[in-house]
Amino acid sequence: VSAALSEDDVIARYLAPLATHPGALGLLDDAAVISPEPGYDLVVTKDALVADVHFFAEDPPASIARKAVRVNLSDLAAKGAEPVGLLLALALPQGWTEDWLAAFAAGLGEDCARYRAPLLGGDTVRASGGLTICVTALGRVPGGTAPRRTGARPGDGLYVTGTIGDAALGLRLRLDTGLGERAREGDRDALLDRYLHPRPRLEAIEALRRHASAAMDVSDGLVGDLSKLLRASGVGASAEAKLVPLSPAARELIAAEPSLFETALTGGDDYEILATVPGSEAEGFEGALARVGLAVARIGEVVEGAGLTIVGAEGAPLAFGRDAYSHF
Amino acid sequence: VSAALSEDDVIARYLAPLATHPGALGLLDDAAVISPEPGYDLVVTKDALVADVHFFAEDPPASIARKAVRVNLSDLAAKGAEPVGLLLALALPQGWTEDWLAAFAAGLGEDCARYRAPLLGGDTVRASGGLTICVTALGRVPGGTAPRRTGARPGDGLYVTGTIGDAALGLRLRLDTGLGERAREGDRDALLDRYLHPRPRLEAIEALRRHASAAMDVSDGLVGDLSKLLRASGVGASAEAKLVPLSPAARELIAAEPSLFETALTGGDDYEILATVPGSEAEGFEGALARVGLAVARIGEVVEGAGLTIVGAEGAPLAFGRDAYSHF
Repeated sequence: VSAALSEDDVIARYLAPLATHPGALGLLDDAAVISPEPGYDLVVTKDALVADVHFFAEDPPASIARKAVRVNLSDLAAKGAEPVGLLLALALPQGWTEDWLAAFAAGLGEDCARYRAPLLGGDTVRASGGLTICVTALGRVPGGTAPRRTGARPGDGLYVTGTIGDAALGLRLRLDTGLGERAREGDRDALLDRYLHPRPRLEAIEALRRHASAAMDVSDGLVGDLSKLLRASGVGASAEAKLVPLSPAARELIAAEPSLFETALTGGDDYEILATVPGSEAEGFEGALARVGLAVARIGEVVEGAGLTIVGAEGAPLAFGRDAYSHF
Repeated sequence: VSAALSEDDVIARYLAPLATHPGALGLLDDAAVISPEPGYDLVVTKDALVADVHFFAEDPPASIARKAVRVNLSDLAAKGAEPVGLLLALALPQGWTEDWLAAFAAGLGEDCARYRAPLLGGDTVRASGGLTICVTALGRVPGGTAPRRTGARPGDGLYVTGTIGDAALGLRLRLDTGLGERAREGDRDALLDRYLHPRPRLEAIEALRRHASAAMDVSDGLVGDLSKLLRASGVGASAEAKLVPLSPAARELIAAEPSLFETALTGGDDYEILATVPGSEAEGFEGALARVGLAVARIGEVVEGAGLTIVGAEGAPLAFGRDAYSHF
């Protein structure tokens, strides 16, 4: 260990203050003990993030912590679940410093508070190679109300929250400094921020539970993830490219460089919610999201059969070189 | 990725068959959805294992999988919890092969079946450096019956299950081939096996729930872990070195090289259960463990005050150069 802190010091000084749930036992125990509330299902999800695969090792430590938390909360949101708490396994690379850890814990703590997802437990170990973070998120949802990937039916409307492609374009701007210099400063900052700081759409959980037939979060690109949902449900879908919601910054960048539209639709890291909603529930779904102030766009419709068709501006189906971004 | 398999292939071919719990949703979804049984508390624990920190990268892949599962189940056992299921995040290094993965999944699957801990979900990513495995184990325990680390009281008996030091001596034998050559072959094999294959003491859960005032598993060495439990409970303890249960193989090796007694008591990787039991419960505790065929030894007593005293063969307290093995 490069810093002078022991594992117990790290836990006591930086992590135990975030363990505000009584079931966390102050992080003094081997495990957390939670009493589930009767009538609720428990939702559990787990995502690992690896330096220079899922984030840049030189990103601000608070941003790395936030991303690790938020990509997991995004999975809870897609199941209509409100957060109960988080477990964190942190594999620290050679040369980590207490300053780095303090900043990481500060970002982690702010998000634990913001999303009411206290730290429940975890593990701190030495990494082999770069920083590796594994978060398990626990959530709860009234029994039987979590939407699955398998529930989409022909005739359902196809919806996405927020805007698509911002994070993928932000990543492109980081990797291609020439492109970054040609983008407007405000646009560049907005897109870079979407890459660094996913926004788990927890405000959508009630609308999803009440009205969606299927839902998932968009983490590996809209085209690939939508295709997965369709396969899981045994249906196809038809969508219109011009209905895919784009931010002003994404629109600007794509206008200057049209090939980036494919990046936006296949690039990943959106952490928006993709949902299918029966026609009879459409008004309720749209109304519920309007009430919580979350933008949502109907981009197409579920159809019988298999496969996804995205119709372009000229009325012809678009073809993509690849479906999805893979972090694998 | 060095192998020709995509992440979806890995999941479909090797992991989905282990996801026998209906809440795992066939690993087709973002998350698992579990309906907790009324009256039960949920126990959650998470341990990360890193190549060449927690295991040897060249260990048999089935053994690596088993260790990752079992160290987590050991934490459940210490809380009196029976397994519900596991989540696995697997960060695969450059150069992994399908043969390696098939063997890993086979070991994982055997232990999922053996301990009735089906796979509930997880994540598969590219590692930065060596293989890194993170397991989250979920268990359940009748509400309010999980023993904590904080419940030890003066007068309680101090117990450990099984035998102490075997895994630490096994590790020493691997690192010091000269010592290995001097050990008897049967002893060497027994100790090496204890290092490779922890044995989570799930057969102890009912005895712990009914009779223990505090419990934890011994993962970082008896002396250090017992000291942690005493600090958490705000008590001290006195134990006798000659009462610490040793296997025949450990006894043999220590007789030839007495300094290895310290290794046995501080070396870690035991995955035995350390418990404190009030005098009125001693008979019940010992009887319950006898009925399930798990050896247990009373090694001392909880006392008022603070600190741990281990009295040696000559009646003088032993002093150790270090308390515990740290994987950090």
